[in-house]
Amino acid sequence: MATEQKEQKAQKPAQRAVKPKTAGNAAKTKTAGAAKGRAGAAGTKENTAKQAKTTKAKNKLKIIPLGGVGEIGKNMTVLEYGKDMIVIDCGLIFPDDDMPGIDLVIPDMTYIEKNAEKLRGILLTHGHEDHIGALPFALKQFSAPVYGTKLTIALVEHKLEEERVKNAQLNCIKPGDKVQLGCFTVEFIKTSHSIPGAVALAIVTPVGTIIHTGDFKVDYTPLDGEPMDMGRLAYYGSRGVLALMSDSTNAELSGHTISEREIGKTFEHYFDIATGRVIVATFASNIYRIQQIADVAISFGRVICFQGRSMVNITKVASELGYLNIPEEKIVEVEKLKRIDDSKVCVITTGSQGEPMSGLFRMANASHKLNVGAGDTVIISASAIPGNELGVSRVINQLYQRGVRVVYDRMADVHVSGHARREELRLMFTLTKPKFFIPVHGEAKQLYQHADLARQMGVPEENMVVPEIGGIIELNRSGIKLNGAVHSGSIMIDGSSVGEIGDAVLKDRRQLSEDGLFTVVIPLNKKTGGLIGQPEVISRGFVYIKSSEELIADTKNLVKSLASQFASANRSEWSGIKNNIRAALKNELYNKTKRTPIILPIIIEIDI
Amino acid sequence: MATEQKEQKAQKPAQRAVKPKTAGNAAKTKTAGAAKGRAGAAGTKENTAKQAKTTKAKNKLKIIPLGGVGEIGKNMTVLEYGKDMIVIDCGLIFPDDDMPGIDLVIPDMTYIEKNAEKLRGILLTHGHEDHIGALPFALKQFSAPVYGTKLTIALVEHKLEEERVKNAQLNCIKPGDKVQLGCFTVEFIKTSHSIPGAVALAIVTPVGTIIHTGDFKVDYTPLDGEPMDMGRLAYYGSRGVLALMSDSTNAELSGHTISEREIGKTFEHYFDIATGRVIVATFASNIYRIQQIADVAISFGRVICFQGRSMVNITKVASELGYLNIPEEKIVEVEKLKRIDDSKVCVITTGSQGEPMSGLFRMANASHKLNVGAGDTVIISASAIPGNELGVSRVINQLYQRGVRVVYDRMADVHVSGHARREELRLMFTLTKPKFFIPVHGEAKQLYQHADLARQMGVPEENMVVPEIGGIIELNRSGIKLNGAVHSGSIMIDGSSVGEIGDAVLKDRRQLSEDGLFTVVIPLNKKTGGLIGQPEVISRGFVYIKSSEELIADTKNLVKSLASQFASANRSEWSGIKNNIRAALKNELYNKTKRTPIILPIIIEIDI
Repeated sequence: MATEQKEQKAQKPAQRAVKPKTAGNAAKTKTAGAAKGRAGAAGTKENTAKQAKTTKAKNKLKIIPLGGVGEIGKNMTVLEYGKDMIVIDCGLIFPDDDMPGIDLVIPDMTYIEKNAEKLRGILLTHGHEDHIGALPFALKQFSAPVYGTKLTIALVEHKLEEERVKNAQLNCIKPGDKVQLGCFTVEFIKTSHSIPGAVALAIVTPVGTIIHTGDFKVDYTPLDGEPMDMGRLAYYGSRGVLALMSDSTNAELSGHTISEREIGKTFEHYFDIATGRVIVATFASNIYRIQQIADVAISFGRVICFQGRSMVNITKVASELGYLNIPEEKIVEVEKLKRIDDSKVCVITTGSQGEPMSGLFRMANASHKLNVGAGDTVIISASAIPGNELGVSRVINQLYQRGVRVVYDRMADVHVSGHARREELRLMFTLTKPKFFIPVHGEAKQLYQHADLARQMGVPEENMVVPEIGGIIELNRSGIKLNGAVHSGSIMIDGSSVGEIGDAVLKDRRQLSEDGLFTVVIPLNKKTGGLIGQPEVISRGFVYIKSSEELIADTKNLVKSLASQFASANRSEWSGIKNNIRAALKNELYNKTKRTPIILPIIIEIDI
Repeated sequence: MATEQKEQKAQKPAQRAVKPKTAGNAAKTKTAGAAKGRAGAAGTKENTAKQAKTTKAKNKLKIIPLGGVGEIGKNMTVLEYGKDMIVIDCGLIFPDDDMPGIDLVIPDMTYIEKNAEKLRGILLTHGHEDHIGALPFALKQFSAPVYGTKLTIALVEHKLEEERVKNAQLNCIKPGDKVQLGCFTVEFIKTSHSIPGAVALAIVTPVGTIIHTGDFKVDYTPLDGEPMDMGRLAYYGSRGVLALMSDSTNAELSGHTISEREIGKTFEHYFDIATGRVIVATFASNIYRIQQIADVAISFGRVICFQGRSMVNITKVASELGYLNIPEEKIVEVEKLKRIDDSKVCVITTGSQGEPMSGLFRMANASHKLNVGAGDTVIISASAIPGNELGVSRVINQLYQRGVRVVYDRMADVHVSGHARREELRLMFTLTKPKFFIPVHGEAKQLYQHADLARQMGVPEENMVVPEIGGIIELNRSGIKLNGAVHSGSIMIDGSSVGEIGDAVLKDRRQLSEDGLFTVVIPLNKKTGGLIGQPEVISRGFVYIKSSEELIADTKNLVKSLASQFASANRSEWSGIKNNIRAALKNELYNKTKRTPIILPIIIEIDI
């Protein structure tokens, strides 16, 4: 405790401090302590603690993850103390196979919207989609100054432009910079990750210092020449860190992620033996990887051609900002490749995840200008993100069938992760010496294994919390605990609509995809309820209707016989009869086909 | 060549020969050479070779894979020479995410049905679903004696019983046995795999000997004490093998699969530190694994409880046949576990693939009698089969959230594959010294990498064929080539129907699952074509209808205005008008929602 108190006093904005472009935000806020009644609206777990909370609320820091825990993706965390609130990251997640037709998913930000007057700033740790992708949606709901390093901000600008969000307050910071946001002082600390410009955050709060690592790994020989700023982390560690929030993505994996530099050897080998074109697929945001590939390609006398929309966009931005250095004369457009010998060509493309319509996907499907085939080498410099395995596999198979030499992670060291493994996570504990620990950025299995590692590193059980989305982590200098929850969840985005797709719609889609749909239209005389003419049957995704004429005829007869009940019934009973028809059809169709399509009886009332 | 001719003469049925129970089959066949006109019905690739084929057809062996190449699953291969045909394996494949609602997929066996009079026997290499699962469907179409080792046959019997297939001609063979099937002499050779009773096949044909490895790995210290019979493979190798057909599943992976015995140490470690129950999930058919787990459990003073339908069934069969040896008093029913201290309990369960409703799935979801939680250890002794990764991950996460210690393949050596890696594949070449090579059992990437390895092992390019489903591989003593194709493909099984689900139905299901369905019912006066009353709109899986009233109202108005065209049109134009309505709706809905549901305009003609 003593060291933490010292920390508070010693902490001066010695380094360059960045002021928000719009300072008004902080001044406007007058509703101190207003959060009291709001927090815990949904699923409060420890109502018995309410009494204690009321009296001590003022000297507790609240940490509320709105995403990124219990999942990989849509990272977003609220830090709240008194009348001040800051947000760390604002990411999206791509839908899994349980969400057919959904384009993307963002955190439910209701809690921030309701407390928008407290919001002092949004801090971005780096420019990956799962950290910045929800920002356009957020800034449509509330405004706040945004802070990030220059590549992060450049990527955000591009994104906001696409989504037509104007007047955002974007602030470029450098590692070492500090910003004052209400009662929070935030220092940005250089880390290593699979995109340039990644930072950890040292957040000095009234109750102590919080270190949030962002996504990180420890690379002693990074391509940008600047390893993680261990000195700064150790500085905070020696003065006392109240809580560490650390990246758990690779907490399952023992050892140490190898240096990005190591895989350069693999590229050299395959460029050395390649006779035709070399096509490398990787993440567009992995500028270090792209630099390394380009360097090797140029050393083997090849020119570089970028393919895929995001690859072209991001490499352009990264070159302008000085993150990527490729001599301009070495970069050629795809149209000019015809005039260059295959042995002098290197294509760097999107599609390492087998995404439909990506550069590599189209090459594998022969729907790309580059007609890849025998003699060409394709290197997939990435791992399949969970859920993408089959898509990646399909692309690899198609490339083999076209006679291409394919090199991928199961065969050779062509990829390293951007996340710390267990030995690196131990290093983070050793540097920061936290009193409390909160594992972040990971599925439950990774969070719990990170907590297990924390135990090995000497953090007592009662000093850690495995967080849940929406769960309020309260901490002060003496304790940490989960105390209630805020309204939280996932907002699914499909097409142009936000939040309109609910569980009922998704459930329908899943059932439709399993067994299809069976529609019966029943035309009734509006006055008498008598059946007029024939019921009509239409099915989709159920059976091949031309070969099921008997089934359809039987069904029509069944409906006809049941529909006779309408005429003798009161109108109030119609809905019951309709349900009976549905049940009878369900039964009949299941018996005959062992399938359960969605059954849609439609009554058309005709006024004659 | 010389050695191959010698081989033919030297080959005597020295070992115990098994006669088919029903010998009549071989005698019945009278239509020699009838295949000429049939083969190549679909997609014949080398029609120019027809002339040559006609004259030489009699001294060529045809190898026709109907499944299992270019995919992992539904292994089935036809060998045909003159008037004789044999089939190796008869497996199924589980549907991927492109086939919503499909239960399972089997090979299209039309070619065998059409040539059923030639069929001399079906040889099963082992009892996995991807080698025996389609047998009930096959035996409903054609009959033939079936050969397999005793566990394989026991599993087949169970399967046939479930599918109510009677009078199958099942023959138990032992490694070392030979059977004569028309012009083919087949010897069964002991191998190692992840199920007992796996065999390779040495098939002596009029043109030379074919070695088919089945699924195999090389385990020098297998749990059954009997390694692969390398002597027998070397015997054939020394006398001349015309062609090797070898398992390619792990052809991507360098090195040697570690011995099943090695992972025993991991089990010992986790049993040693476990305080509560130990629950191990693995494949029900991996009897070696189950034996090993049971041995360790018993050595730590625990009793064994089997959970999951297939686990209970297969372990029962395996115990009866002597493959599994667990003292009866050590096996307890789940109901009795309450009376036993947690530290004395080991549960062996299904669900290692995260399959819905499996034992482990229900435990993770708290819908199982065993209320697993803090103190318990769950070991997932399996790898996720491609496509199952997310399901397995979900189960692991849920178990962690329930406080369970989970051990799985990313953390510890709890699983070994049943398939040979590259060094083992090299051993197979070294033993059998084949002239020709056909990689089997693998996706394209694995087949091509196996072919690459064959090149390294000295097989010339022109002596190998990378097979495709349906492609006819013709070989004689001097050459091998692809020559045409037979009708082949996948039969999808959904519910009780076989073959009824076509691509159109699947396409509908996929579209329904993406954006749902939008139905408009248009009631028309049968005589005049005039609209009677209001069009009715019903959607499912598209938008939440209660919050989209405006959209629905606009749509109804659009339909109403367009439907006025019916009255002034000839009946022959109605279908065109209907298409116009569909197109206009598609446009309208896309503009307003950026979604493309299936649009179903239904015209109801009312005779008034």
